[in-house]
Amino acid sequence: MVKIAILGLGTIGYGVYDIVTNRLQNVEVKRIFDRDFSKQELVGNIITSNFDEIINDEEISIVVETLGGLDFPYSLIRKAIQNKKHVVTANKEVMAKYFKDLMLLKEENNVSLSFEASVGGGVPIIKNLIDIANTNEVTSISGIINGTTNFILTKLNQGYEFDVALKLAQELGFAEADSSYDLDGLDMLRKISILASIASNRIVDIDKVYHYSVKNVCLDDINFVKKCGFNLKYLASYEKNFIGVEPTLVKGMFPFVNDEYNLISVDASNYGNLKFYGKGAGRYATANAIVNDIVDIVNGNKNYTFTGQKELEIGEDNNEYIFYLRVKDVNLVDKNIIFRQENNQILTKNIKRSDIDFSNVLFYARAK
Amino acid sequence: MVKIAILGLGTIGYGVYDIVTNRLQNVEVKRIFDRDFSKQELVGNIITSNFDEIINDEEISIVVETLGGLDFPYSLIRKAIQNKKHVVTANKEVMAKYFKDLMLLKEENNVSLSFEASVGGGVPIIKNLIDIANTNEVTSISGIINGTTNFILTKLNQGYEFDVALKLAQELGFAEADSSYDLDGLDMLRKISILASIASNRIVDIDKVYHYSVKNVCLDDINFVKKCGFNLKYLASYEKNFIGVEPTLVKGMFPFVNDEYNLISVDASNYGNLKFYGKGAGRYATANAIVNDIVDIVNGNKNYTFTGQKELEIGEDNNEYIFYLRVKDVNLVDKNIIFRQENNQILTKNIKRSDIDFSNVLFYARAK
Repeated sequence: MVKIAILGLGTIGYGVYDIVTNRLQNVEVKRIFDRDFSKQELVGNIITSNFDEIINDEEISIVVETLGGLDFPYSLIRKAIQNKKHVVTANKEVMAKYFKDLMLLKEENNVSLSFEASVGGGVPIIKNLIDIANTNEVTSISGIINGTTNFILTKLNQGYEFDVALKLAQELGFAEADSSYDLDGLDMLRKISILASIASNRIVDIDKVYHYSVKNVCLDDINFVKKCGFNLKYLASYEKNFIGVEPTLVKGMFPFVNDEYNLISVDASNYGNLKFYGKGAGRYATANAIVNDIVDIVNGNKNYTFTGQKELEIGEDNNEYIFYLRVKDVNLVDKNIIFRQENNQILTKNIKRSDIDFSNVLFYARAK
Repeated sequence: MVKIAILGLGTIGYGVYDIVTNRLQNVEVKRIFDRDFSKQELVGNIITSNFDEIINDEEISIVVETLGGLDFPYSLIRKAIQNKKHVVTANKEVMAKYFKDLMLLKEENNVSLSFEASVGGGVPIIKNLIDIANTNEVTSISGIINGTTNFILTKLNQGYEFDVALKLAQELGFAEADSSYDLDGLDMLRKISILASIASNRIVDIDKVYHYSVKNVCLDDINFVKKCGFNLKYLASYEKNFIGVEPTLVKGMFPFVNDEYNLISVDASNYGNLKFYGKGAGRYATANAIVNDIVDIVNGNKNYTFTGQKELEIGEDNNEYIFYLRVKDVNLVDKNIIFRQENNQILTKNIKRSDIDFSNVLFYARAK
């Protein structure tokens, strides 16, 4: 019997407890780290608020971190690894910021570190991307990997105003009271950084990742781009010389990704294009991603090793794209770049970023 | 250095040789089983037409089968397993017909048997479905998993006549001279049987799988269902009480699966809906699926075990669906089931299969 500990008995932590207890015959949740002892009604007398009881317990071989946050869970993950525990985490903040450090630490301590649930919730993108990158050059990744903003954009597409859609997302528990982490792309830039690290075997400095907020999107934007044959989504992307998060004009399958669903598209030298679709949030989808990491460790499967030493170079994006622009003053826009215009809304011809005067732009989206 | 043998140096076999030789530093192709020694120009002096030289070579630990066919490759796979070689195969015919036998045999001999490329070409559906089924109840699977018929339907959607589309598929090497294996659903029924076995942990008798040919589809069918807001695709599906291959009315993402691309949708109790998209055919996509199976074996990752003893029960399909029907005589159709009609083309209301007089039907498609 493999014994594990779960850090944090919140939505995801309880989901992990539930699936492990009811589906895995050879794994037992021995301890749960939480400060709320009233939750023992749910899980029995296994809650502790003393982390040392977990790392000093030699029977516990796997520690599952579902606390969220940055510094505190990072310190616990480090301690767990240093005490020779395998770690499974859903924490994109910790993984994005300390990718190389934690990968080195787990190699030094000869344990596994798995983080499937840190990107895409229930979409098995990490394990698949590791497999793909191992035998292919990954040339690009693009994805809808934030449930909150995709839920809001889905509602805008259904005719809701932005403020109403945001409030609905908050009421349904998708969006936090402080929604800027999602709306400004801070959540997605961490996730795309993790994917880019795997794809490139390079270190990604999250402070250098481009991100443009979706908070100023309005119904006019949605309706104009629809007339132009596009759909507006908030995408993260990794390409040669570019890594970033920005409102994006999409066609094909992406417009059919609604609410909390995620879609991640990967271009690879041998496979060509691959796409992975599923729930980016939700208790059981996310918890199951964690449980499958546990199963891989229990099965003794080879854990991912990151050998990257160099930082990923992020250069100038000199590619040409179609852009949607909502501008302050249409008279200041170079007539040569306009393909279609209505009032202060413009669809451009294929142009470079440097062809746009962003000081005149109220909101924009780039075509894929 | 892990040494492997490849059986058959065709399109896929050469792709495997190429990727292994150029990307895997710890794996070497020692022998290739083929009758055409002129191919030594491509791969050097490693071709043999004597299979015993491979199974008696103790240095060779993995045998990769890319011959195609049924009885002959089956006999070679058996011999390889009995001689304690791990086997990787792309052969859906062998896997669908002898799933349980081969799974038992490889357990008895304590070796791995991997078959990622047997379904979906480069789409990593087998490995993912194994993971999903391990921790979820899989309630349904549906997929476009035949490149030839999807290529033909894509062309019909672009306005080509059926005969022209079929000829084009043959000229491009997608379709065989005898196209009935693809058109009648015999290829897809084998693939869905493999997926259903994994999903249900049951034995699937391929002779009991329902299949309705797409060979009688015509431009009128395509155009009428388009007017009704659908797209016509040839899908394989596995649901409670139903497993089969039939022309299907689709919406959402499925209409965007064109040419040789595949899309497989899986509904699971914890994950909810997951979708996997990619190239269902082609040298490097398919070969890479095989190579990733090789990597898993080299890494010592736990191989899939099938413990199913019972046969999957296929019952009456009593669910209600919308159907598209092209009939011989519209006067013989019960007026109560008609939702929309033009000449001899009908879109039905939600009805059961048993409500349809199939003796009057020239071609049909079922809505998902």
